[in-house]
Amino acid sequence: MLLITSGFAETGAEGRRLEEELVRAAREADILILGPNTMGICNPYGTLFCCGSNVRPKPGATTIVSQSGNLGVQLLDFAEHEGVGIRAFGGSGNEAMITIEDYMEAFEVDELTRTVVLYLESIKNGRRFFESARRVGKKKPVVMLKGGRTQAGNRAATSHTGALASNIRVFEAAARQAGIVVVEQPMELLDLSAAFSSLPLPRGNRVAVMTLGGGWGVVASDLCVENGLAIPDLHPELITRIDQILPPYWSRSNPVDLVGEFGPTIPMMVIEELMKWDGCDAVIHLGILGLQVFMKQMITSIHTVDPGMDRKILEALPGALVEFEKSYLAHAARLMEKYGKPVLGVNLLPDENARTVMDIEGSPYKGVSFLTPERAVKALARMNAYRQWRERE
Amino acid sequence: MLLITSGFAETGAEGRRLEEELVRAAREADILILGPNTMGICNPYGTLFCCGSNVRPKPGATTIVSQSGNLGVQLLDFAEHEGVGIRAFGGSGNEAMITIEDYMEAFEVDELTRTVVLYLESIKNGRRFFESARRVGKKKPVVMLKGGRTQAGNRAATSHTGALASNIRVFEAAARQAGIVVVEQPMELLDLSAAFSSLPLPRGNRVAVMTLGGGWGVVASDLCVENGLAIPDLHPELITRIDQILPPYWSRSNPVDLVGEFGPTIPMMVIEELMKWDGCDAVIHLGILGLQVFMKQMITSIHTVDPGMDRKILEALPGALVEFEKSYLAHAARLMEKYGKPVLGVNLLPDENARTVMDIEGSPYKGVSFLTPERAVKALARMNAYRQWRERE
Repeated sequence: MLLITSGFAETGAEGRRLEEELVRAAREADILILGPNTMGICNPYGTLFCCGSNVRPKPGATTIVSQSGNLGVQLLDFAEHEGVGIRAFGGSGNEAMITIEDYMEAFEVDELTRTVVLYLESIKNGRRFFESARRVGKKKPVVMLKGGRTQAGNRAATSHTGALASNIRVFEAAARQAGIVVVEQPMELLDLSAAFSSLPLPRGNRVAVMTLGGGWGVVASDLCVENGLAIPDLHPELITRIDQILPPYWSRSNPVDLVGEFGPTIPMMVIEELMKWDGCDAVIHLGILGLQVFMKQMITSIHTVDPGMDRKILEALPGALVEFEKSYLAHAARLMEKYGKPVLGVNLLPDENARTVMDIEGSPYKGVSFLTPERAVKALARMNAYRQWRERE
Repeated sequence: MLLITSGFAETGAEGRRLEEELVRAAREADILILGPNTMGICNPYGTLFCCGSNVRPKPGATTIVSQSGNLGVQLLDFAEHEGVGIRAFGGSGNEAMITIEDYMEAFEVDELTRTVVLYLESIKNGRRFFESARRVGKKKPVVMLKGGRTQAGNRAATSHTGALASNIRVFEAAARQAGIVVVEQPMELLDLSAAFSSLPLPRGNRVAVMTLGGGWGVVASDLCVENGLAIPDLHPELITRIDQILPPYWSRSNPVDLVGEFGPTIPMMVIEELMKWDGCDAVIHLGILGLQVFMKQMITSIHTVDPGMDRKILEALPGALVEFEKSYLAHAARLMEKYGKPVLGVNLLPDENARTVMDIEGSPYKGVSFLTPERAVKALARMNAYRQWRERE
């Protein structure tokens, strides 16, 4: 029997005493306790949603375990919103009986979990946790946000889950050695879920950038270099091949600026040349996806200026754009399969219907497109760091 | 006469030659040139939208000047989406005649501009720019993203706007001295527009955190400290006062965890106590706003489980929440006026209808609420750094 215990308000010595009493009684009655202080569990594969929230993420490859209930279920909410598929969620809470160490051992054997996401404030058995994390990490990435890194945060954690202070420097060094991908911000957990669960790992740090506008190419290049990635020069042969596709005044360098050229075949042809090129390990494209917002604004403006214009012509445009995006993503997925390099997109326009992760029929990979260049660059940089760790191990 | 010149594809020596020729001809004909390589200008106050995009931001207090056209208009798009009001936009492009230095002098006298936002790749007259920035900065914040900070970014900038390489260390030191708020990521430009144009400046770095859930309080505390802000201990007298409002098992420390208690008056009373308290300079609240998503999911679940339940009762709930948010924001604005401290919110749930900036009738301040704690914390930290610079000057 599994008992899921949500509210457990007492902290400090009295909290620990009550918890011990609860565990003793449960052991005697052969009851397993989740929590206390948990928001429950969910498994979208079994449509099991036993959770202090009514969120319904779709089945997928990311498993989330969170010692904070509210943070955990809000991550599930974001996951649903961004199209990140969930293998399972466990709100481990104060971990009176089932601990993060137990969860870790399950990840080792669970084939459906491709990315492990953790929010932790404290760990009861550090040695067991890090040894297990290292074994899991050799098979799949473990991404972690540690709450209570600072004295103020730690004090808050103590009054929250009752976590005891630990030396964060020692903790972080152990995490790095165990290959854990450590992040500082909650949303990075999901961005890395999207990237790790949907894309092949890069084999190096060299990025080819393709952009619909020059400024975003500059910004993306700066961010790449500042995050340990490289923007290699294009090979002269590659330049000659792109000369056949773009107008004569194109940038002739990396980032490849499409200089506003937007026939639907142009980005398809350019991305293929870049993926083929053995001088890069990944492609970031900016402004190719998510143009519907721009298009809708344009249509509204045209209707205002020229109300007599045939609406049918204009109203077919967003549909054509949707079709283009589908074939572009499918094309990118085929290229990922063929060349084993990740492709990350950046939308640039805030579209309420846009999702970070887009399924592609018949492909083991997915389309991934972030709203801002920094999110794409950071995700790629962490993928590369994880690949380096795996190679060293 | 003003000539707005968009496309200008030639770069390098030939580009400069053509540009010089254009400027000479324009001077002779008494024509002023904006650009070349610009996406135009807009002024929502005069409903002048002469822009290579159909975006329509509302009138406001932020003026954006961008040497990159696409980056500039996409910032406008985000501004419209997030509710950030725009005073004016200028795509300054390659700046053959009208330069960023000219714009800066206009900001000094334009009363409607409360925050200046710049995307720059190069500056023709550094001395004039920084002197002007310093004068402007004493009246209103100048927020800047510099494109081409790295060699790769600089190379991209050279092929884009034809900007020449500059020493970024020297540049950044000069910017700091001039009080410019330097950011690394495009979206920070808008987050700071939201904060600077809508809130009073903090008088120090001490933050009181109020949260609906413990984990987010831990995360926000860590981020505050890591960004140079402090989480002071609550004064015993303040604890006694909050004892009257919250159940006996509340955290009794900063962050103030509302432990899931959510009568509409509770957050109102607690935030008032925190704003009154002279031990803090700003309040960050998490999870109070943006609960509609949660509520809608709950209603859907209830309907599924109990189809017979009276729909009227359930369907009144989201409306009540909207009303609560309005009064809460109005209350926070009154407290900002009274105590001269900023209040920053964090939504935590991805709501398609949520805006970062919300107008409040009759107040000089606005409601500001970000989707993630890191955005709120970073904005507040930069506000505090700017205030410190102003005090030193």
